[in-house]
Amino acid sequence: MNPLFELVGAVAAILTTLCWLPQIMKILRERKTSDISLGTNAALATGISLWIVYGVALGSLPVILSNSVTLLFILAIVGLKLRFG
Amino acid sequence: MNPLFELVGAVAAILTTLCWLPQIMKILRERKTSDISLGTNAALATGISLWIVYGVALGSLPVILSNSVTLLFILAIVGLKLRFG
Repeated sequence: MNPLFELVGAVAAILTTLCWLPQIMKILRERKTSDISLGTNAALATGISLWIVYGVALGSLPVILSNSVTLLFILAIVGLKLRFG
Repeated sequence: MNPLFELVGAVAAILTTLCWLPQIMKILRERKTSDISLGTNAALATGISLWIVYGVALGSLPVILSNSVTLLFILAIVGLKLRFG
């Protein structure tokens, strides 16, 4: 593949992984989660867990690593949601 | 690949795409978005847009289609966030 598109994929992976940090920081700062859907984040955590299984089956380290980091962030949001309601 | 892992990938894709519906329904019902991070959703929409570009470069219809549907959902959340604040 054209190296430009490899770069696009890398930036895409970084953005869709690190994008959760502002949400986590906002919750830690304001201690409010009532507008956030628990169902969305629980389904997202389940889906990302399955992406990790798929990445292992595929032998794709980028899929495994980016989804593992994202899973940690989403589990943090689920934990904060359960705590702050 | 083992058909079981293809199924795992398909369920992963469905979950990480449709998971946004409960969040959108919750916002439409309660008309409140103040706990949701605009930065997270704007970065997520940008990242997903780049995944679509990457999918086009890769010629992968599953990457293009699942990310296109997800992008519509995230743009809906961004729009609702801009409306309800």
